[in-house]
Amino acid sequence: MLRARWALPFAVGAGLGAALAPRDRRDARDPRGEAAEGLLARLPVLPAVAAASAGPPAPPGSGRTELSKYGLPGLAQLRSRESYVLCYDPRSRSALWVIEQLNRDTLSGASDRAACDFQEDDSVHEYHRATNADYRGSGFDRGHLAAAANHKWSQKAMRDTFYLSNIAPQNPHLNQNAWNNLEKYCRSLAKHNRNVYVCTGPLFLPRMEGDGKMYVKYQVIGKNNVAVPTHFFKVLILEKESGEIELRSYVMPNSPVDEKIPLERFLVPIESIERASGLLFVPNILRRTSNLKAITAGSKS
Amino acid sequence: MLRARWALPFAVGAGLGAALAPRDRRDARDPRGEAAEGLLARLPVLPAVAAASAGPPAPPGSGRTELSKYGLPGLAQLRSRESYVLCYDPRSRSALWVIEQLNRDTLSGASDRAACDFQEDDSVHEYHRATNADYRGSGFDRGHLAAAANHKWSQKAMRDTFYLSNIAPQNPHLNQNAWNNLEKYCRSLAKHNRNVYVCTGPLFLPRMEGDGKMYVKYQVIGKNNVAVPTHFFKVLILEKESGEIELRSYVMPNSPVDEKIPLERFLVPIESIERASGLLFVPNILRRTSNLKAITAGSKS
Repeated sequence: MLRARWALPFAVGAGLGAALAPRDRRDARDPRGEAAEGLLARLPVLPAVAAASAGPPAPPGSGRTELSKYGLPGLAQLRSRESYVLCYDPRSRSALWVIEQLNRDTLSGASDRAACDFQEDDSVHEYHRATNADYRGSGFDRGHLAAAANHKWSQKAMRDTFYLSNIAPQNPHLNQNAWNNLEKYCRSLAKHNRNVYVCTGPLFLPRMEGDGKMYVKYQVIGKNNVAVPTHFFKVLILEKESGEIELRSYVMPNSPVDEKIPLERFLVPIESIERASGLLFVPNILRRTSNLKAITAGSKS
Repeated sequence: MLRARWALPFAVGAGLGAALAPRDRRDARDPRGEAAEGLLARLPVLPAVAAASAGPPAPPGSGRTELSKYGLPGLAQLRSRESYVLCYDPRSRSALWVIEQLNRDTLSGASDRAACDFQEDDSVHEYHRATNADYRGSGFDRGHLAAAANHKWSQKAMRDTFYLSNIAPQNPHLNQNAWNNLEKYCRSLAKHNRNVYVCTGPLFLPRMEGDGKMYVKYQVIGKNNVAVPTHFFKVLILEKESGEIELRSYVMPNSPVDEKIPLERFLVPIESIERASGLLFVPNILRRTSNLKAITAGSKS
């Protein structure tokens, strides 16, 4: 039955399922608005939540401010923390992208990973927030986007990487081997450059099925339906001692990857990440510097 | 072969596929940065594109402006047009949500639908833009989110609804029958209320598969991989003559729906749309009025 198969949280209109006998739900449930008040009463008070959705009183460039009279339902949810800036995707319950800055200073310090616990990001509305329970028993690791070991310089910076908004469900083998190697490689680059800006995020790539059509398919885990990416990307902006900029971009599948495969085999053209992710990197960089000297990409073969 | 199955646009790192012989791609392709310049030369000049991604020089509340030194790769892409405000989702090549305002004035006028053509939204970067070619032969209609017939008051307002950013791939039977009825119903409500604010958008709902796990699966069409939603929502904010506010929210599956099923059978609790879409409606409304008198929802049975 359609209604049983599609998971619309909590309740589904009868019309979505089988043909139940029609009735006037409004009269039946809410003659004095009590049911409505019941729902309202369950809505949490939101302190920081909607820095995003509270947003501007009128959309930029709009002559028609009336349109936003009752608010805009969702805008980019930026989180700026000690160790990263993150754009949250409330639909997937994880980040669209996370940027961090690595250099010799951020890599050194005495911060202790053992003192960090994975924690819910309560700046995200509870409807759209991943919890530790969502991951439990899922078979997936809580994979860091901004890596903890990149931020030894400050215990708070390291702790901030443990917010579940900076985490995505990651295949344990990938997380503990090839992906970990890529993170280590970023740190080694940070030792030999002025700065390394690292942008990490999930991808949900389509593939062709037996019917010849293209489909995106991904698992969701836990009560909150946390999306399991099909792939992850890392875009590295290397700022050399000379001031020259080099861009390197990697994609790995969210599945076991033989760590003997050299990391450069996961290089891809930045354009492919830009197209698949809905993000733009190169235009932003070009707007800010004329010093972009190389875009190091994978083979097109 | 993994590489052949996953569609990362244009090129995939060799490591994503079979074990090809390693080689130093950087030396091989780009000894003097020529390949990089070739890629850069292909990047279009972006006039309006990155109103979003150009964005603020530093993220709000950030003490660490350094993190955005080379830009932030993507923020909410608002488009404010004559007939609607829209938040674009560059990953799915369509809108996250579209809000329009309906009342007696917007419904009357002589605007002619025959004078409108579906058009690419060239305010969106070409990497993330749907084209008419993407829809051709797909089997899906170009389904309006903000409906054309809601905006007879102005030819420009009507024409603006034909931007492909306000369009999503929709099952033709749904588009031409039950969904059309829902749009007509919105207009009939607009005649008997002071204003009706209508927010429309896609949903990508998970469902359980044979292995007992939950998956989101949706088709993508055309060269640009335009996402085909599994469902659509409409949230109606009715502003009555008395000033009281009523909220009604509907979900329909993106598949043929018998138009004999009464529309009220597609009512769902607003909370279910808020959870599934990653959007928030009720907190925004409550922040702006204490006059919310009813949330008319579907049966929980």
